[in-house]
Amino acid sequence: MFLSKLLPLNEALSKIDEIQKTTEIETVPINECHNRILAEDIYSAHDSPPFDKSAMDGFALIAEDTFGASQANPKHLKIIDQIGAGDFSDKKISSEEAIIIATGAPIPEGANAVLMKEYTESDGDNLEVQSQVSPKENISPRAEDIKEGDKVLNLNTFIRPQEIGLIASAGYNEIKVFKKPRVKLIITGNELVEPSKTLNKAQIINSNQYVIRAMIESAGAICDVSHEYDNFENVKKSIKKASNDYDIVITTGGTAISKGDIVIDAVDSVGEVIFHGVSIRPGKPAGFGIVNNTPVFMFSGQPVAAMGQFDMFARKFLFKMQGFDYNYHIVKRESRVKIPSTLGRTDYIRAVSDDNFTHHVLNRGSGIIRSMVEANSYIIIDENDEGIEKGDLVNILFFDSMNWNR
Amino acid sequence: MFLSKLLPLNEALSKIDEIQKTTEIETVPINECHNRILAEDIYSAHDSPPFDKSAMDGFALIAEDTFGASQANPKHLKIIDQIGAGDFSDKKISSEEAIIIATGAPIPEGANAVLMKEYTESDGDNLEVQSQVSPKENISPRAEDIKEGDKVLNLNTFIRPQEIGLIASAGYNEIKVFKKPRVKLIITGNELVEPSKTLNKAQIINSNQYVIRAMIESAGAICDVSHEYDNFENVKKSIKKASNDYDIVITTGGTAISKGDIVIDAVDSVGEVIFHGVSIRPGKPAGFGIVNNTPVFMFSGQPVAAMGQFDMFARKFLFKMQGFDYNYHIVKRESRVKIPSTLGRTDYIRAVSDDNFTHHVLNRGSGIIRSMVEANSYIIIDENDEGIEKGDLVNILFFDSMNWNR
Repeated sequence: MFLSKLLPLNEALSKIDEIQKTTEIETVPINECHNRILAEDIYSAHDSPPFDKSAMDGFALIAEDTFGASQANPKHLKIIDQIGAGDFSDKKISSEEAIIIATGAPIPEGANAVLMKEYTESDGDNLEVQSQVSPKENISPRAEDIKEGDKVLNLNTFIRPQEIGLIASAGYNEIKVFKKPRVKLIITGNELVEPSKTLNKAQIINSNQYVIRAMIESAGAICDVSHEYDNFENVKKSIKKASNDYDIVITTGGTAISKGDIVIDAVDSVGEVIFHGVSIRPGKPAGFGIVNNTPVFMFSGQPVAAMGQFDMFARKFLFKMQGFDYNYHIVKRESRVKIPSTLGRTDYIRAVSDDNFTHHVLNRGSGIIRSMVEANSYIIIDENDEGIEKGDLVNILFFDSMNWNR
Repeated sequence: MFLSKLLPLNEALSKIDEIQKTTEIETVPINECHNRILAEDIYSAHDSPPFDKSAMDGFALIAEDTFGASQANPKHLKIIDQIGAGDFSDKKISSEEAIIIATGAPIPEGANAVLMKEYTESDGDNLEVQSQVSPKENISPRAEDIKEGDKVLNLNTFIRPQEIGLIASAGYNEIKVFKKPRVKLIITGNELVEPSKTLNKAQIINSNQYVIRAMIESAGAICDVSHEYDNFENVKKSIKKASNDYDIVITTGGTAISKGDIVIDAVDSVGEVIFHGVSIRPGKPAGFGIVNNTPVFMFSGQPVAAMGQFDMFARKFLFKMQGFDYNYHIVKRESRVKIPSTLGRTDYIRAVSDDNFTHHVLNRGSGIIRSMVEANSYIIIDENDEGIEKGDLVNILFFDSMNWNR
């Protein structure tokens, strides 16, 4: 019913952008925040370093005691204590005294410099000083890195291991993050059966339930799957229920004219079809609608088309739902081959790319999963290009650059 | 005790390589195999396509019936059925008959070609054929992609969503994968406390327990953490017990001379210290040993040093334990800055890199977590280089390229 008027990809994406929203915010303990997105700014409760600390392994001392010292004319001090990293000394340094100190340890009271170990000799508690230092030398002053109250991380930051370290150091044991989107994946198709070594006539193994679920999870979301038979009332009921219970609904199958548009008609009957049919390859019959304020992405039953549609339409939407303002990182590579395309259509071509070159995977039927297995990237041919020539610098999107985990 | 003789990085890595092993094999259901490594070859139980299938939306018919047809001289056939993708027709096509067919649907008996919809007009069951087709045209023959019995995936393949699709299509509902390594992370340091808004004198927040755990998980492994006080007997007992219960032990803290080498001494007393002290920055006091046949990685207490040591020594080891023959993907970028280094030492310098350029993060103390937060990559300066000049093409390792999930 809709497929005849194909939308350009960019217009389709704009229509999806219009209803982009983020999930709600939840508070999680710090050991559960890896690969989540901050839903608050983080302010440090502490100075960092929290005290004047040594920047070198050496000797804390009074700089003035070293003035004039050299290898030829060493000075002599008395070692009165030793401070490891994380330890501290209660002793106060007086004139002609020194304390052995480790990198990172707090400077003891009375000292105003650290002399590097390399410029000394020691024997018992006798220290021979062979070089002079200036006051403040080799000391990282308290709060030089972060001052108490400084904002150290912004809202919407992706939390990698190092961000967790900063959050912990700032004094937080729990933080606010965006909730993971809950996605209902509805697989349609009477012909689909569970993986098995034996198949009956026209039965096809339901691989989409595993593939698209894994892709949804690789976009940071939580996925439940159901398999529905190609019956209009049944599909309609299933989509309506999912729209109540989940943040997003994704369907596969039932979007091509030849199958009677069951899914498109179902969404049309209980909500609104925003578009059906996009000028792309693979994945032309892609549809998008809203039921009950819930976005419904309608993808093909053909596995490769569904994977491409997920990458084109759903992945970024899921990223942005989690507060991550994400854009694909497109890089340029030299094409080893000529690839024709059609003006007005955007192609996502399965490709093998390295640091310099790219070429397409030869076996490109939209049902041929092996072509996605051989590929590590898409060559993207814009709708304004009629194709690419051998030697052209072309747009490449590496699969592994689209991963949620960082 | 060991730190005085610093090993070159490559020699240290060779010593670790010597005891590299893989985990045991386990069988998992197909919906749990995402981001795991195949521990068996996968053979297809089916032909793919499993039947002669249509490569176009159009009409299945007898090619000979179209011979001579053109827009000026159309031929007329009778439409007797319709086949959607995944459906099939029990009807057999006889001369001057056609069946509407979708891309991917099985070719009905009697037909030997598919005519694209574009070259037809239809009215009810009357089909006007405006072009001729050859026998076999627009038909993907059974098994053209994969033959029953073909090996479709090799042992040691990383399983992305598309590999799951191929595994399912091959007829498997469970597969053999390498077990996730179980890692015990032992954090030492009397000074370390849980994240809090208030700290006492010389107390440091224990961020390593969160940071290194997240890094271990980002390498595909499972991690349990304990915090041990700097007491030789206590640390020794904890390492010994962990070596019985886990595949790998990682410690932080207690490796610098200034702290008395508690961890090194503990490993030495219950096992063997293979090396202590590597010519790298950050992370010089890195140690490695074997207790009870279990590798023990001994890292610094300083968070940035520990992160660098994890990336240099443990990450690849964990990848290879899971059967993934992984190497860092080093790329070249032009340095915007001059950076001195020391001959004989390998530097992993925190850097901000883009598609063309790189520069180092200025604040580089090994305790300054913020420097890892600002960075997205390492500049690696080889031990044979005395540094890099502005404009040099230098080796870059992007953090996100080191992720386990793909």
